[in-house]
Amino acid sequence: MEPIRIMIPEVHEAIEKRDFRALKEALQEFHPQDIVDLLRTMEPADRLILFRLLAKDRAAEVFSFLELDEQKDLLSRFTEQNLKEIIVEMSPDDRTDLLDELPAGVVKRLLVLLDPAERAVANELLNYPESSAGRLMTPEFVDLNADMTVDEAIQRIRQTGPDKETIYYAYVTDATRTLKGMVSLRTLLLAKPGTRIEEIMKEEPIRVRTADDQESVAHVIRKYDLLAVPVVDREERLVGIVTVDDVVDVIADEATEDIQKMGAIEAAEEGYFQTGFFSLARRRILWLMILLVTATLSGSILEHYTAALQAAVILVFFIPMLMNTGGSTGTQSATLIIRGLATGEIDVRQVGRVVARESLMGVLLGSAMGLLGFLRAILVPGSDPNVWFTVGLTLILTVTAANMTGALLPIAAKLLRADPAIMAGPVIATIMDATTLLIYFEIARRLLGIG
Amino acid sequence: MEPIRIMIPEVHEAIEKRDFRALKEALQEFHPQDIVDLLRTMEPADRLILFRLLAKDRAAEVFSFLELDEQKDLLSRFTEQNLKEIIVEMSPDDRTDLLDELPAGVVKRLLVLLDPAERAVANELLNYPESSAGRLMTPEFVDLNADMTVDEAIQRIRQTGPDKETIYYAYVTDATRTLKGMVSLRTLLLAKPGTRIEEIMKEEPIRVRTADDQESVAHVIRKYDLLAVPVVDREERLVGIVTVDDVVDVIADEATEDIQKMGAIEAAEEGYFQTGFFSLARRRILWLMILLVTATLSGSILEHYTAALQAAVILVFFIPMLMNTGGSTGTQSATLIIRGLATGEIDVRQVGRVVARESLMGVLLGSAMGLLGFLRAILVPGSDPNVWFTVGLTLILTVTAANMTGALLPIAAKLLRADPAIMAGPVIATIMDATTLLIYFEIARRLLGIG
Repeated sequence: MEPIRIMIPEVHEAIEKRDFRALKEALQEFHPQDIVDLLRTMEPADRLILFRLLAKDRAAEVFSFLELDEQKDLLSRFTEQNLKEIIVEMSPDDRTDLLDELPAGVVKRLLVLLDPAERAVANELLNYPESSAGRLMTPEFVDLNADMTVDEAIQRIRQTGPDKETIYYAYVTDATRTLKGMVSLRTLLLAKPGTRIEEIMKEEPIRVRTADDQESVAHVIRKYDLLAVPVVDREERLVGIVTVDDVVDVIADEATEDIQKMGAIEAAEEGYFQTGFFSLARRRILWLMILLVTATLSGSILEHYTAALQAAVILVFFIPMLMNTGGSTGTQSATLIIRGLATGEIDVRQVGRVVARESLMGVLLGSAMGLLGFLRAILVPGSDPNVWFTVGLTLILTVTAANMTGALLPIAAKLLRADPAIMAGPVIATIMDATTLLIYFEIARRLLGIG
Repeated sequence: MEPIRIMIPEVHEAIEKRDFRALKEALQEFHPQDIVDLLRTMEPADRLILFRLLAKDRAAEVFSFLELDEQKDLLSRFTEQNLKEIIVEMSPDDRTDLLDELPAGVVKRLLVLLDPAERAVANELLNYPESSAGRLMTPEFVDLNADMTVDEAIQRIRQTGPDKETIYYAYVTDATRTLKGMVSLRTLLLAKPGTRIEEIMKEEPIRVRTADDQESVAHVIRKYDLLAVPVVDREERLVGIVTVDDVVDVIADEATEDIQKMGAIEAAEEGYFQTGFFSLARRRILWLMILLVTATLSGSILEHYTAALQAAVILVFFIPMLMNTGGSTGTQSATLIIRGLATGEIDVRQVGRVVARESLMGVLLGSAMGLLGFLRAILVPGSDPNVWFTVGLTLILTVTAANMTGALLPIAAKLLRADPAIMAGPVIATIMDATTLLIYFEIARRLLGIG
């Protein structure tokens, strides 16, 4: 799968010996991604040497496979001429990604290198909101007329194909650039040569809008098993396409982002090793501070009941178990709802169905945990039936409450246009700790006649 | 995007009126996924009616878009003839998915309906381990010979294309079916008609093996931006391909699975509403029970130190804050490592680098939290410097320990061939609760001279 690994020592040797001809030939064999892996094993200065040995279009392709911070590092070493070659050859969507990350001054300098038409495209793409279909799309699609024949269409694909992001889906537009239909290269190739496009095209093809969030673009491509989806503006004019390879990254990245938020980390765009140490520390420390301060609320409740605790020391034993079970139950239901909302499987309008299901679930889990806690309490030396019932009853109530809290907070976040993923484990656990202690001591006070 | 929504009342009406001809025509317009959405709004009996109005190949396609439990439900209503039509028309990988889920008796009955060649394929696919490339692949790929011309190759694609999963990538094999190269339809279409395939094919194409896990197949397709990847057996013979649309589902499903495990839920294959109530309860209750019982360890520790607690009641106030911060820190580092391992960005061989990074991070976060806790302690009425230092010191130690525990447990799980995702929030929190209490009271004992 990675035959290039074997080559690494040879490549390093060739660079040392300045044997560029052999190197240039060897590089032609490999997939751009493999060349990226190779570049990563090299010193920055050598990277530039190797990079300049690549053919122009290949260099742009390799460049697109680099992470953004690697692209920035390499850019800083380029001459104006190198820069121009790479930027011009990059596909518009990859170029937008890069320009988006660079300081404004550098962006200006790069835009100057493009010809006016390409500069207009770059500027247009940059004007769409971040994470929107407009940013993700490329304007390099194949467009056809409805009255072309299959032969003419294939001819057109042959001519314009080399510059297009995909030639496997072609889009049919009219004189006003309005999206009229879609035809796959498969359909074209299997149809009779003289057939007109309008006879075989799919009318009203599935589309997204420039302002649509990239997550919903991913949903559409995933739902309909598409290789690309057309992007239209408010007037239904076709302005670009989003291809499945970009969507694969969106799906994986959005999952990473959600997972990080659920773990009480402000989401980072880069991977674990790519993210700077202090940047990562910052993303973690804010949440830890908020949670630490919030948790002192539970401390106050615990302190408020110290008289009760001192009167019945045995109550202390059950505190971690009760807090932990409440937190875990809330984490579970929050996890299910957050993921359901993210994959589009749960809609906020289904809140009634969620409430019905989770209140039943809470009672079921609460009863089970209550029974288990009750039995566990019996085993504790010095406990009595009042303690057993206090523990059992507390578990029934807290587990039921935690289950509902975990289910409803992510939905509430979504309704308030916040990210549901922040309403996960650590936040729910902190909220449930306080609730659990209140329930516990109020029951204990009544059953044990203390405090 | 979903124009079929408008049609739903009309379709229901047409079924009631038994106006099948109009219905049949209307159905031809829609994407199979939209017909699935329509089916979901209908009574089971009506579903069958609507389903039988679809053309054979279209019915098979719609069927493939249904969830497995919906497929099973529909199958149970089919006549032998319906069944045969659907099963025969389904693509081999979708068929394997279905057969995999059905009771053995039903599978036997269905296999009988296939012709011997297709039966052999189904049996072969079923013999690969679950979640392997072998299960995910389809044997319906386009294969070419190296000495064909481009024209001959396109001719062959035209002839065999209708039965293939994708025609956009074709694979070059020799007489022994060994994978020799790969050529995209794009390359074919842009090449001169008389060119020989061996001149333009990509030699040594990226490939996966039948036994490879589906997650690593997804990594390869994502890394190299492929539309499909060839699957070879141990002798490098080409046996199938995995296409990007299957991989999109794998990426999303694996993320869901990890997120559920991280939320202490045994992962379910179906979505939130698809999973049965009791099945979901079962998947949650086992973890809750394990965590409840484990948490009693923290209870024992707390109980062990009740004398100290009674001597310095103020210590009670800080318990939730300390346990919570330890749990949250461990959740954060576990989250980062689990996701890094899942996306392939962190390799278990990098454990040294992770340890170096996370020990530094632990000290940094610990110091920050220690300082914050120290300051918070000053604000608590009746506290004294000994208490401030006890709280601050405990936070430094527990946060450092929690950060390392959260980072190392997922890696340990991976080394032991368990899923790292189970070593997440709730498990780490439970472990850290006990550790935190031990550290807290041992420091308090020494600084406050109690217990």
